[in-house]
Amino acid sequence: MFDSHGFHQTAMAELAVAAQVSVGQIYRLFKSKEDIIEALVHDDADQWCGEMAEIQMRMDAGELTIVETFEQLLLHTIDEKDEALSFDILAESFRNAAVADTIGTMCQRFRTYIRYFACAANDKLSGEALDAAEEMILACLFGLGHRSLSRPRLSASSAARLTAEMIVTALGGVR
Amino acid sequence: MFDSHGFHQTAMAELAVAAQVSVGQIYRLFKSKEDIIEALVHDDADQWCGEMAEIQMRMDAGELTIVETFEQLLLHTIDEKDEALSFDILAESFRNAAVADTIGTMCQRFRTYIRYFACAANDKLSGEALDAAEEMILACLFGLGHRSLSRPRLSASSAARLTAEMIVTALGGVR
Repeated sequence: MFDSHGFHQTAMAELAVAAQVSVGQIYRLFKSKEDIIEALVHDDADQWCGEMAEIQMRMDAGELTIVETFEQLLLHTIDEKDEALSFDILAESFRNAAVADTIGTMCQRFRTYIRYFACAANDKLSGEALDAAEEMILACLFGLGHRSLSRPRLSASSAARLTAEMIVTALGGVR
Repeated sequence: MFDSHGFHQTAMAELAVAAQVSVGQIYRLFKSKEDIIEALVHDDADQWCGEMAEIQMRMDAGELTIVETFEQLLLHTIDEKDEALSFDILAESFRNAAVADTIGTMCQRFRTYIRYFACAANDKLSGEALDAAEEMILACLFGLGHRSLSRPRLSASSAARLTAEMIVTALGGVR
């Protein structure tokens, strides 16, 4: 409902009807709609971190080359679902410190994984170069995850594969 | 007002009061709030295309190296203003075909410039490789433009310079 009608256009009472519970029951679990958003962001972050942990394991086990590793990471975000809701939540974070904090904490978890992958591509990365690698990879993941609006020509699989190659080239070139 | 309170939380009547005009006057210019968003997106796109045209001219005149060219492009988006409103508009585009169309058209204009810059970095780029370069650069611009939420360690200027270097390395490595 948040995704199709918008976060602000959906009332707790409507959520209760759709979930076939009473409004009181919803309020026992969530103090407000903001609390539901927090829960959604947490769930989403947990799922994404679980997927990154699995990709990391497969890379460490030698099942994925470094290019395939980045390809898998990109393929995951390129299939972004609930985009309208994602953007509602991002907008909300600028008006609500608790949501901003949840997103900030979530991104710190992402960054830890991303740093690990960057170092796997180039173990000489450190200091500002490593920070910048982290920024660039995060930007590619976020940007490709929201590319549908910009009317891309490339298929998701080609975009993921070719971008993974470019990322690995970019990281390898840093001294 | 859209940025601080949200697009859906701001009434046309409030906009009229803030702009010191009558509600009737606003409705003479804009049929709905959606029309105001369209106008904002158009204005923003025109401004950004103007800036890209200027960067292109300076590059073509030899005033900017290719790394400096990408650095300038990134510096522009890294200073993104009105982020809450941007996200509101992006969310709206998934619920409103007219807004999606405006954003799609705007991105086509951006893509034309981005393609030009990609080819300046590597004139052998063509086909899918060029499409992917376009995707990757667009993702970096969009992603770095919205990096504030992810609590970056790097300053804007370092992030722009080092990401520009990585983009040029990535593009140069494609055959």
